[in-house]
Amino acid sequence: MQRTNFGEMACSIARTMDVIGEPWSPLVLRNVYVGINRFDQIQQQLGISRKVLAERLRWLVEQQVLERREYAANRHEYALTDRGLELVDVLMVMVRWGDKWLAGEAGPPVLYRHHACGGIGHATLACSACGRPMGAADIDVLPGPGAS
Amino acid sequence: MQRTNFGEMACSIARTMDVIGEPWSPLVLRNVYVGINRFDQIQQQLGISRKVLAERLRWLVEQQVLERREYAANRHEYALTDRGLELVDVLMVMVRWGDKWLAGEAGPPVLYRHHACGGIGHATLACSACGRPMGAADIDVLPGPGAS
Repeated sequence: MQRTNFGEMACSIARTMDVIGEPWSPLVLRNVYVGINRFDQIQQQLGISRKVLAERLRWLVEQQVLERREYAANRHEYALTDRGLELVDVLMVMVRWGDKWLAGEAGPPVLYRHHACGGIGHATLACSACGRPMGAADIDVLPGPGAS
Repeated sequence: MQRTNFGEMACSIARTMDVIGEPWSPLVLRNVYVGINRFDQIQQQLGISRKVLAERLRWLVEQQVLERREYAANRHEYALTDRGLELVDVLMVMVRWGDKWLAGEAGPPVLYRHHACGGIGHATLACSACGRPMGAADIDVLPGPGAS
């Protein structure tokens, strides 16, 4: 993979990118999330080599975002861990950005129906402290306890 | 870069990853966002080669997430475009995930102070339709108009 160890940087973006910063990994997570969670199914949907897929899956299991479980004798499938399900939040915001800026005339490839309201909505960012909208223009960035 | 053209997939995650799916790109965006926006400054902070940085910057300008502007005779700096500033939302959710799962005992490397409430908060996801929390466990994924 890359020679620089992004996982060692004192930066949560770098550490997160160390886990999913290679384009197939988010797509593998996406597939497991929507139920395409057996090796052959994932491989067929993505159209990648078995070798590359096996590596990606091994990595994501090692990073504890996926787990591999046996559903029948010698038959395995993958599932998101709690950590992995929360990582899908990152994918949801990528979806929003990609839908807005890169979807062209065709429009969004997928839509989200929100259980709580029954409506079609996209992910927006809100502040954990006050609940109001909090995007990149709405914050100051301060050093935290884990700063290098 | 990668041989597969993720930008051509009918998937907003893939299209977004085509823009920032290489670990240095989000870190370049992060730097410009916090004001480290001149070539030498970015290069020094990241510790990467001038060649790699020049490629990353060229790509991000081509993808219209950064713009390059002259601040003095023959002196240039980079700035986020509107599109690029919205892409920082993706970084903010990566920060949340990295802080929660990968920050260890040291804790978060950075903190966000929310202008609206003055408090320290992290990014959470909310529904654009109803405003209530909307994470990966709270939605159904449906085909959209742009599905392949």
